[in-house]
Amino acid sequence: MSLTQTAEDIREMRIRGAGRIARAAVEALREYADTLPDSDLATFREQMYGAAELLGDTRPTAVSLPNAIRYVLSAIERAETATDARSAFHARADTFIRSSLHAVREIAEIGARHISDGDVILTHCNSEAALACIIEAHRSGKEIEVFATEVRPRNQGRITIRTLDDAGIKTNFIVDSAARHFMKEIDLVLVGADAVTVNGAVVNKIGTSQIALAAHEARTNVVVAAETYKFAPRTILGELIQIEEREGDELLPPEFAATLRNVTLRNPAFDVTPPEYVDLIVTEVGAIPPQLAYIIIREYLGWEIDEFQKPFVISEQDQE
Amino acid sequence: MSLTQTAEDIREMRIRGAGRIARAAVEALREYADTLPDSDLATFREQMYGAAELLGDTRPTAVSLPNAIRYVLSAIERAETATDARSAFHARADTFIRSSLHAVREIAEIGARHISDGDVILTHCNSEAALACIIEAHRSGKEIEVFATEVRPRNQGRITIRTLDDAGIKTNFIVDSAARHFMKEIDLVLVGADAVTVNGAVVNKIGTSQIALAAHEARTNVVVAAETYKFAPRTILGELIQIEEREGDELLPPEFAATLRNVTLRNPAFDVTPPEYVDLIVTEVGAIPPQLAYIIIREYLGWEIDEFQKPFVISEQDQE
Amino acid sequence: MSLTQTAEDIREMRIRGAGRIARAAVEALREYADTLPDSDLATFREQMYGAAELLGDTRPTAVSLPNAIRYVLSAIERAETATDARSAFHARADTFIRSSLHAVREIAEIGARHISDGDVILTHCNSEAALACIIEAHRSGKEIEVFATEVRPRNQGRITIRTLDDAGIKTNFIVDSAARHFMKEIDLVLVGADAVTVNGAVVNKIGTSQIALAAHEARTNVVVAAETYKFAPRTILGELIQIEEREGDELLPPEFAATLRNVTLRNPAFDVTPPEYVDLIVTEVGAIPPQLAYIIIREYLGWEIDEFQKPFVISEQDQE
Amino acid sequence: MSLTQTAEDIREMRIRGAGRIARAAVEALREYADTLPDSDLATFREQMYGAAELLGDTRPTAVSLPNAIRYVLSAIERAETATDARSAFHARADTFIRSSLHAVREIAEIGARHISDGDVILTHCNSEAALACIIEAHRSGKEIEVFATEVRPRNQGRITIRTLDDAGIKTNFIVDSAARHFMKEIDLVLVGADAVTVNGAVVNKIGTSQIALAAHEARTNVVVAAETYKFAPRTILGELIQIEEREGDELLPPEFAATLRNVTLRNPAFDVTPPEYVDLIVTEVGAIPPQLAYIIIREYLGWEIDEFQKPFVISEQDQE
Amino acid sequence: MSLTQTAEDIREMRIRGAGRIARAAVEALREYADTLPDSDLATFREQMYGAAELLGDTRPTAVSLPNAIRYVLSAIERAETATDARSAFHARADTFIRSSLHAVREIAEIGARHISDGDVILTHCNSEAALACIIEAHRSGKEIEVFATEVRPRNQGRITIRTLDDAGIKTNFIVDSAARHFMKEIDLVLVGADAVTVNGAVVNKIGTSQIALAAHEARTNVVVAAETYKFAPRTILGELIQIEEREGDELLPPEFAATLRNVTLRNPAFDVTPPEYVDLIVTEVGAIPPQLAYIIIREYLGWEIDEFQKPFVISEQDQE
Amino acid sequence: MSLTQTAEDIREMRIRGAGRIARAAVEALREYADTLPDSDLATFREQMYGAAELLGDTRPTAVSLPNAIRYVLSAIERAETATDARSAFHARADTFIRSSLHAVREIAEIGARHISDGDVILTHCNSEAALACIIEAHRSGKEIEVFATEVRPRNQGRITIRTLDDAGIKTNFIVDSAARHFMKEIDLVLVGADAVTVNGAVVNKIGTSQIALAAHEARTNVVVAAETYKFAPRTILGELIQIEEREGDELLPPEFAATLRNVTLRNPAFDVTPPEYVDLIVTEVGAIPPQLAYIIIREYLGWEIDEFQKPFVISEQDQE
Repeated sequence: MSLTQTAEDIREMRIRGAGRIARAAVEALREYADTLPDSDLATFREQMYGAAELLGDTRPTAVSLPNAIRYVLSAIERAETATDARSAFHARADTFIRSSLHAVREIAEIGARHISDGDVILTHCNSEAALACIIEAHRSGKEIEVFATEVRPRNQGRITIRTLDDAGIKTNFIVDSAARHFMKEIDLVLVGADAVTVNGAVVNKIGTSQIALAAHEARTNVVVAAETYKFAPRTILGELIQIEEREGDELLPPEFAATLRNVTLRNPAFDVTPPEYVDLIVTEVGAIPPQLAYIIIREYLGWEIDEFQKPFVISEQDQE
Repeated sequence: MSLTQTAEDIREMRIRGAGRIARAAVEALREYADTLPDSDLATFREQMYGAAELLGDTRPTAVSLPNAIRYVLSAIERAETATDARSAFHARADTFIRSSLHAVREIAEIGARHISDGDVILTHCNSEAALACIIEAHRSGKEIEVFATEVRPRNQGRITIRTLDDAGIKTNFIVDSAARHFMKEIDLVLVGADAVTVNGAVVNKIGTSQIALAAHEARTNVVVAAETYKFAPRTILGELIQIEEREGDELLPPEFAATLRNVTLRNPAFDVTPPEYVDLIVTEVGAIPPQLAYIIIREYLGWEIDEFQKPFVISEQDQE
Repeated sequence: MSLTQTAEDIREMRIRGAGRIARAAVEALREYADTLPDSDLATFREQMYGAAELLGDTRPTAVSLPNAIRYVLSAIERAETATDARSAFHARADTFIRSSLHAVREIAEIGARHISDGDVILTHCNSEAALACIIEAHRSGKEIEVFATEVRPRNQGRITIRTLDDAGIKTNFIVDSAARHFMKEIDLVLVGADAVTVNGAVVNKIGTSQIALAAHEARTNVVVAAETYKFAPRTILGELIQIEEREGDELLPPEFAATLRNVTLRNPAFDVTPPEYVDLIVTEVGAIPPQLAYIIIREYLGWEIDEFQKPFVISEQDQE
Repeated sequence: MSLTQTAEDIREMRIRGAGRIARAAVEALREYADTLPDSDLATFREQMYGAAELLGDTRPTAVSLPNAIRYVLSAIERAETATDARSAFHARADTFIRSSLHAVREIAEIGARHISDGDVILTHCNSEAALACIIEAHRSGKEIEVFATEVRPRNQGRITIRTLDDAGIKTNFIVDSAARHFMKEIDLVLVGADAVTVNGAVVNKIGTSQIALAAHEARTNVVVAAETYKFAPRTILGELIQIEEREGDELLPPEFAATLRNVTLRNPAFDVTPPEYVDLIVTEVGAIPPQLAYIIIREYLGWEIDEFQKPFVISEQDQE
Repeated sequence: MSLTQTAEDIREMRIRGAGRIARAAVEALREYADTLPDSDLATFREQMYGAAELLGDTRPTAVSLPNAIRYVLSAIERAETATDARSAFHARADTFIRSSLHAVREIAEIGARHISDGDVILTHCNSEAALACIIEAHRSGKEIEVFATEVRPRNQGRITIRTLDDAGIKTNFIVDSAARHFMKEIDLVLVGADAVTVNGAVVNKIGTSQIALAAHEARTNVVVAAETYKFAPRTILGELIQIEEREGDELLPPEFAATLRNVTLRNPAFDVTPPEYVDLIVTEVGAIPPQLAYIIIREYLGWEIDEFQKPFVISEQDQE
Repeated sequence: MSLTQTAEDIREMRIRGAGRIARAAVEALREYADTLPDSDLATFREQMYGAAELLGDTRPTAVSLPNAIRYVLSAIERAETATDARSAFHARADTFIRSSLHAVREIAEIGARHISDGDVILTHCNSEAALACIIEAHRSGKEIEVFATEVRPRNQGRITIRTLDDAGIKTNFIVDSAARHFMKEIDLVLVGADAVTVNGAVVNKIGTSQIALAAHEARTNVVVAAETYKFAPRTILGELIQIEEREGDELLPPEFAATLRNVTLRNPAFDVTPPEYVDLIVTEVGAIPPQLAYIIIREYLGWEIDEFQKPFVISEQDQE
């Protein structure tokens, strides 16, 4: 698929999901590099940077897109000849795609080790990575039980319990409001993430921070499952991120809403859980305390501290 | 209406709502007393206590029912002749019914004084007393704004925003999960109560304790509006109350639920907010800190400390 | 001094200070009672209530004034003949004046018992009762050391250190901002109160709540010395009291202030320390935890719970 | 200006202020290097290290001085020939001076992004960097309001409100003691720093830690504006830093102090705010959570962990 | 047994244990009253007060002794003739002895209701009342498991596990230091008390406050089983009670201790758990939150608030 | 001593103690390297890695063993010829042994600087490094006082007070349960560590976390003295470490235990103190806040983040 076609598909949301977006962009860059004629290093870099910019501009609020591009282009930056740059870029692109595809598998294995036999786990929303940890723990013979929330307004909890039911895992389904009520029975809160900030705050489905607060009140551990490309250098500090609100029509039937004159429907898709309420973040390169988030950002994603400062808006459509 | 008829109507839930149940029981006792022939004090007491027991047994988990019966019968206990007992009972029954009918009006006036001009108020569920405070504050010219939650699974929030919209009050509608996200904008959390325990814990719609916890985290005041007959001597300590769970069919469409084999639907109607997260309880006899709850119970409802110890189960159908 | 003259003197602030205002009002009522001709009980009551109202209206925001009037008039309420009423009133007025005069002496003795040999005490503002405790502890041979704050904007700390210096007590003088810095060296925070609310919150000189917060952070005990007439039934809940602000000219030289166009001088005289940061309140009738404040209000001052609900504004000129 | 003259001027406090001291030292080293005859690398290093030691000894408690010297000398350490060393040193000295001069400007731009339209900001003392953020936010069209404290004993708050008034920013002036009282109205606390320690604790004007504690109690964000040369490797741990006390004569008129025999004037210029009360530190190289302070110290200032252990005394005259 | 003989036996610790001391004193007073010749009320009172004083002086630090004496003598205070006084006193003495003997039985029934099927309970020291609750819960068919601590230095935990083992209850034995380590597995901490103070603080075996702190950290409920005669009016505030230290020879073999020259053996028998770490106190007259402790003291034991202020020393030998 | 002999001695616990085990392994590797014939790099590596594996397998749960092996082998990894590898390995082995031997000496000097004149220090268990800090502070002339706990079940506190007594330091000996009771008198808690995890949690003798919690409650600093080889990359998160329990026979005399049928003796040797309760970790390369633990692990011990994820069991016999 051509570079411009991929850019178009990402922009028009025909390609969705943090992982798929990232891989599509890298594949498009790889194909594009193959089409480029031999040239000196400067020309090659210029062409590749131009292509990267084209892709990066398609979805300015996606977290995984700049991470992926940055990661693969860094191979070019360090190369000393055009030939080296091409081959280094190719190798790095292959690595990225492969490890991205395997990320959830790796997370599942690492995360399952942090689940003990007999644990009662609370999960919120429908995170592929979090569920993979739970299913892997179940598969390895641990007897576990899950509480899953409804996840208003889009009811993703129904997908979650379907998945858990299919896997034969004992599950309880509760409204979002009941999380604190049941917290005393919970041994572990395990959720995914839409983004992890430099200081280890976790941007995730609205309601996550409330659950993490209740877990913290009860000294229950909170574990987050997140691929490294979810780590967002530009989201400096949790509380200071700007959370985009979705349309309100998910909250009320339109015919009901139409009768109200003084009521605004407020529909933020995410909230921010501060790092002091998070005990562990499981990534495909290892499990870390949230305070080490910036290590992932610097050493695995390649960002420098002076790039952390840009304002950041997070939008739901770019994460899912 | 005859005593047995009223007892039957309460048992069969044809009479519902904490206030209505209480008043119906007192009215039935009053009518019953009028039918009794002249007798000595002992006989009169015996007959009235028998009637009270009949009524009290109809709904063992209602909070207002024993409060009302206890309150009016105490007039008989202190009387020294049958004649005195009759007239004291009549006076007390009248007082109870009148003050019960006026309770919300009184609460609204007292509660509105604790709302300041410019306040942004978060409310949860659909409490007549809490909304009366808000509407009274608005009526008295204070410019206020309200955040109202959806209140899953029965969506009582829709009734709340309808009421606020009709009153011309600027309102925001959010999912239950978004309470902590918006807490920094909130000046006051104002909710009702299904029961208040001896130590000032508040039993209210599921989700209330989560909101109060988030308010506490942000040093936002939590005010509870509750008629005195909501104060429950037998609910010793918040955390130790047994909360009855409702049928799960409110949580999922039955055709969906039918396909699940490993999933239990858990549907507690209430949770318990500990007194350290409550700043003020507004009753019709004055506003008190939660630590004075037992004063209401002892001095306004007439219970003694050695009656506080009975186990208590709270059930939704008896409160609404 | 005639009733109207005393009323005038209180209104015009020729009589100042919580204790002096209270005693002057009681003395005026006592003299007024002596001038009344013999009459029936109803007439006597009417006359005395009228006089009380006249006095009470002079300073609606004083705490001690309604407490004193209420206390002495309660003798009349319970009397059954005019003669009884007169003599009961006289006795109660005498009791009030005597115990009010001795209150600080009693507080000093009780409070000094809570100071241990070797204690380092932090005090804020210039409370006669708090200093009396410190001086009594020193007099009884305990080796103590005091940290006293400056108390901006009116520098009452200078009066405090003068008093402590005269008493020969080792004292350190610090700016208000340094309280937390030195808190690790402090064994006891000991302050006075301008008012104590029903739930045990303490209204005192601006800065007190900040010091109590820092004490709480360091698990240092906070003891408040307060005469019973400082307990204010109408101040329901600490955080909800309205604190009157003084003129800003205490904050800046007028010639400096005159050059500023966008600056407002904000000068609240008091703040509110929540009861969870107060360990003990020493009164002349005994030392109590803040949760028992309403016992003082009900049993020593004679207020009922349904009188607690009135809004309350606290103003500095009425306290000092 | 000659090396010895600069050393003398720094020692005698003719050169003051963290930034100016740092730049003067670097300029003196640069001039000195220019005067040195051609030599081998070892000789050049020895001469430069000698000069650095001379300068470093002038003010052992300054934070910026060793940071600046260390930063520029590291160029020499890595060079392999004398010629390389000279030119690398020159380049690095130029970089340091330029970025130091621009630091406040950079901080203002980064910091202003963390101020939202409508924010009410509390600031303490008179920090050039913190005020630059506020003024930049105002300049960019955000409607903001400021609370500024008096800052006893030297009243630097007057300079602050003069600056804000000149900038046309709506400002409130309060005594230091009133910070907690107004905290509920504050959206953001924004202060400067005299030093930032390895673990992210902030040494700043006395009173800062008290304000940060009150902000923490109310879940209000605390942002610190600090140039990188304020980061102090030798101040391992906030609470364990030794804070030098100033003369007490700032606290009381001498004629008053002279009359006191038992009173000591205690005048610490700074206090230490622990990192858990700080949300963000804005530097000229980016905004970081306090937990990343050591990254600044290691990667921007060039210190190693085994140099962090030296005891450290902070003195006011070296910071201002 | 004669009055003086009983006084002697109590003083010489031939009579031990809070309950036994209290009952012995009341019995001695009852016998003594029977020996007194008919007289007027004043004479009878004088004689009885003299006898009470004799008994009270035997063990000034016992909690139950003054409670018992106070309780039975209050019958005399209210009587209007000598005959009334005698009979009222007799009745009250009988009541006291009977209810004291039944107290543990009553507590067991009330306390067992607060234990749920499946609960894991941590207990510390060897409290008859706490163990009675556990055994009653087990007897009533609830499946429970207990963690019992060693209780250094006197190893009372061994008696506890012997009792639990005999009752057939599944028990774990741990060192005192391991309480926090196992707290996540614990559903309920259940301990006795040597004294309960006016504000609800609990004086109990050294180590209790540490366990309660760890329970509070993990949101685990703490329940205290205490007879009403353990409530101590003179122990105003937990933290301010003076705890007597026992001889150090329980801590080390004397031959070891003899070789140490710089080591002091510190052996406090009790510590004080603040009321905010206690959820419920189970007494024989009902279960109360700690904030209602003074109700027990005033209404069941008959003390007035102005008697609360005396200093109080608690000594182990008087409690056991 | 031959490689196999050393491996045998470590396995059979003839060599004990974290430091001694580490040094013995390094010495065995060094001797083994000397016996190897000249070869190419690949062969040399293979032989050395084989030897390392042999040693590493002897005690899979020791913390210092893999740290030491890893550290010295990293010299081989980076070498480019066999000759380089040999000499680099030799140098690194020498460095390790020397710095390991000096580690306690270095820690003592650094740690003593964090003890102030007049400090009262609480220590738990018998840590050579912690005691060295205390003794060094005493030796340097600071007047200090120590509280030492008994340390059940093995009474290591007796060794501690013997050491302190011999050093002439004023010491108090208390049961483990009394730590919170005395915490208000303590200025500093100073303990050793058996392991430090990646996120700065401290694994140490059972009871340490309880003391640190009580210190945190009272704002008392907690300092941990730990050699760098105690830092354990595989212990990701404190709370999630698996703590091995020892035999229960240390808890009770066997003849007593034999009579119990329902009692299990639970004897965990360690617990985990979360990093938020630790203020400073003193190592031989400097003092760090716990958040920098992973810096030690990465930069001084040479582990990568993706090696942090392995599960980890800590066993007492390997630490002592």
